[in-house]
Amino acid sequence: MERSTVLQLDGQEVAVRDAVRGDLPALLAMLADDPLGASRDPVADADVDVEPYLAAFAAIDKDPAYRLLVCESAGRVVAMLQLSFIPGLSRRGAWRAQIEAVRTHADFRGLGLGRGFIQWAIELARDGGCSLVQLTTDKSRSDAHRFYERLGFEASHEGMKLVL
Amino acid sequence: MERSTVLQLDGQEVAVRDAVRGDLPALLAMLADDPLGASRDPVADADVDVEPYLAAFAAIDKDPAYRLLVCESAGRVVAMLQLSFIPGLSRRGAWRAQIEAVRTHADFRGLGLGRGFIQWAIELARDGGCSLVQLTTDKSRSDAHRFYERLGFEASHEGMKLVL
Repeated sequence: MERSTVLQLDGQEVAVRDAVRGDLPALLAMLADDPLGASRDPVADADVDVEPYLAAFAAIDKDPAYRLLVCESAGRVVAMLQLSFIPGLSRRGAWRAQIEAVRTHADFRGLGLGRGFIQWAIELARDGGCSLVQLTTDKSRSDAHRFYERLGFEASHEGMKLVL
Repeated sequence: MERSTVLQLDGQEVAVRDAVRGDLPALLAMLADDPLGASRDPVADADVDVEPYLAAFAAIDKDPAYRLLVCESAGRVVAMLQLSFIPGLSRRGAWRAQIEAVRTHADFRGLGLGRGFIQWAIELARDGGCSLVQLTTDKSRSDAHRFYERLGFEASHEGMKLVL
């Protein structure tokens, strides 16, 4: 499977590649800079315990079933998403790709970056033999619902969560 | 992690264990015996190509990140679900467990089997270090929504799907 690509964005080139450990500060900053994420992931500072994040990165990085992808522009990490490949019996033994943790840096919103990034993720899923791409978005993110519907997704399911 | 357990159900014992390849005919019959599944998975007969199902089973079986669990009563497989463990950066590097392909045999509905089975899956997720359990259910399955809400799930998200 292709390990990187370049998106053309308003004449500007944005590289898409798998995240590396050195990207973590930028990724954590994007997770914290979000109306819902702010309560779940703190802004990185000296008091934040980074061990759980390092462990999560290592778990994602070592297993080809999970890909943490980033967009890089002029040396800055400006977007992220995680793609997970999940086998299953239903739909004639279909593999499905699940998209999670989609974030675009505030300076890079409204430029079509998210659209190109998700479209590339869909192509990765297709190349990986998946029959279905799925994601859940918080019901309060109505802009996100329209965004995904324009990309062909259908809000056919209730997304149910139980915090342990 | 515990590989099997026994649920008490109306005085009857139901064993919960990981699926084996020989369970496949019973699992496929349950997938097909469903208002939504019927159009996606055919009733097993001589014309059905079982290779994709065998391949999917092998992919699930070889990776400890995926567990296909079944309930067995008096030698019959009477319920199934798949639990997938997914690492992620968000929520302080939380692992999440995803429940899919939940089916109970028509003869065993309304007995509390599903409730006990899901509760056991939740405990497996907790024992596996997950901070979140998630699933999606088709919006037409209103009984399922109530069932999961009674188990503590919140329908906080839109579940979006794109068939490739």
